[in-house]
Amino acid sequence: MTLTSVEAGHAPEADVDIYPSRIGTTPCLLPRLDPVVYASDRSSGPLPQQLVSQFETQGFFIMENLFNQDEVAALFEEMLAMREDPKASGSPHFIGEPGDASLRSIFAIHKSESLFARLAEDERLVGVARFLLNDEIYIHQSRMNFKPALKGKEFYWHSDFETWHVEDGMPSMRALSASIALTENSTDNGPLMFIPESHHQYVSCEGETPREHFKQSLQRQEYGIPPDEILIRLASTGGVATVNASPGSVVFFDSNLMHGSNSNITPYPRSNAFYVYNALSNAVVEPFCTQPARPEFLCTRESIQPLTSQSGDIRHA
Amino acid sequence: MTLTSVEAGHAPEADVDIYPSRIGTTPCLLPRLDPVVYASDRSSGPLPQQLVSQFETQGFFIMENLFNQDEVAALFEEMLAMREDPKASGSPHFIGEPGDASLRSIFAIHKSESLFARLAEDERLVGVARFLLNDEIYIHQSRMNFKPALKGKEFYWHSDFETWHVEDGMPSMRALSASIALTENSTDNGPLMFIPESHHQYVSCEGETPREHFKQSLQRQEYGIPPDEILIRLASTGGVATVNASPGSVVFFDSNLMHGSNSNITPYPRSNAFYVYNALSNAVVEPFCTQPARPEFLCTRESIQPLTSQSGDIRHA
Repeated sequence: MTLTSVEAGHAPEADVDIYPSRIGTTPCLLPRLDPVVYASDRSSGPLPQQLVSQFETQGFFIMENLFNQDEVAALFEEMLAMREDPKASGSPHFIGEPGDASLRSIFAIHKSESLFARLAEDERLVGVARFLLNDEIYIHQSRMNFKPALKGKEFYWHSDFETWHVEDGMPSMRALSASIALTENSTDNGPLMFIPESHHQYVSCEGETPREHFKQSLQRQEYGIPPDEILIRLASTGGVATVNASPGSVVFFDSNLMHGSNSNITPYPRSNAFYVYNALSNAVVEPFCTQPARPEFLCTRESIQPLTSQSGDIRHA
Repeated sequence: MTLTSVEAGHAPEADVDIYPSRIGTTPCLLPRLDPVVYASDRSSGPLPQQLVSQFETQGFFIMENLFNQDEVAALFEEMLAMREDPKASGSPHFIGEPGDASLRSIFAIHKSESLFARLAEDERLVGVARFLLNDEIYIHQSRMNFKPALKGKEFYWHSDFETWHVEDGMPSMRALSASIALTENSTDNGPLMFIPESHHQYVSCEGETPREHFKQSLQRQEYGIPPDEILIRLASTGGVATVNASPGSVVFFDSNLMHGSNSNITPYPRSNAFYVYNALSNAVVEPFCTQPARPEFLCTRESIQPLTSQSGDIRHA
């Protein structure tokens, strides 16, 4: 494998970009050079061995009913209040569906004055992330994802890490996502789909990151998209796994796992709270592209601080 | 219910349009005025009582492995040959995906020189259609449907009968569709979805049919689309049913059943052969709109003839 240097002076903490992407070269598969599970003693954590193994081999696992129905009801109500808050309308961290007024995402919910700030620090999430990443952790990004009923658009295959590395300057694969289901995520309503095992390889994509790419990539990503041949090759090993999650269930998945979702023409919207936990030792540096860093609501940079966790029912904060 | 007259002289065989749609009025639900099951003696046909009941109440049923794997292999090979036939390229009955060169449908396959002409007359299909419609039958329309891998687009909710009535002049709901799976139709790859029980009501849609609507409606329908409130109301009774069909299985569904499909970002394409059987007594008249009739490859009009059925392995025609 040939490693490609980034432009001189652009990534001060790394002379060589070990995960080059969107640098004008042909797309290709590169090996993952980081562990998946960082825990030194796998038996000492909050997870059954089987889930630790599944995370390592497949790149994800689901914990059913991690939050109880009363907690989900409270979160759901808070989510409705947030999305209907007239103050929030027009805020840059409220992102609509492409070509449509429907709300697709609300970013930085861990900084909101809501239960979603408390949820970000919940021991049931933080404990798992800290254990798997074996470090102090902080929130790299958080959001509420909506897949509207009837008009919910698809989201094409991508690795989050590819974007966080190129556009945010996340150095290594030492981050994971937790998606908390607030509604039923069924096979019908455009659920999250994974290509299991795809996190063991890194897809170096073609193209170059355009200026302020995030302004449209949050609606429909056009750069950092793997080519057909590579997706077919990845799926020929791992297949495609569909996430069915009932409200209160949580999907944990590796930062480099290939994922996406189909459209949703059913009358059943789906909503998930989404937190990205990054190891403190893996804090972002300068982006691995020639564009300026993305705004703070998409990538925590100025306000990095290790999370303290909170136990007990989230309603009793 | 107020029935609306169509323009004088436009539908010579019916003074009153009992299923008005796209006539510039507000969309609404009208009652179905036709039977679903026409069979006089339900116990004398080729179907178990349970499937006859399911067709009546839900509007569809699946017959698993109606065609064997050798037959499916032969059909699949023939399908590949048809889609790659250089003579066919550019033919008006080859329809692409919206904004894309991928093939979406090939129409009038029952008139092709292929096994799909033989399949249209197969006793396993014709016997069921003749029994449920209790009449001589003919092919109103046939096609091969492709949902490409990775880039397969969604197809929004619609009733086929609404289009066949308005644009083709099919008088009554005395037709049904048979969709024969040539590949796996899984929950992941944008399978057919139904709103069960929706066939008991007729959605009168807004708008007026534009000239040569079919030229784009075969890619993405924009007229004859039910409004959100009506879809939500229909699904609040019947829910949404997803069709999982293995190759060789057949889905039979009523002409007025609301159906659609999500997009397909998986690397698994799906292909189905699709035949619409209409009762001979329900042959098309003039369209129930002000536009001229659609071409023969979309709606059999000039070449209506009752089907004779053929038994045995389709490969031994």
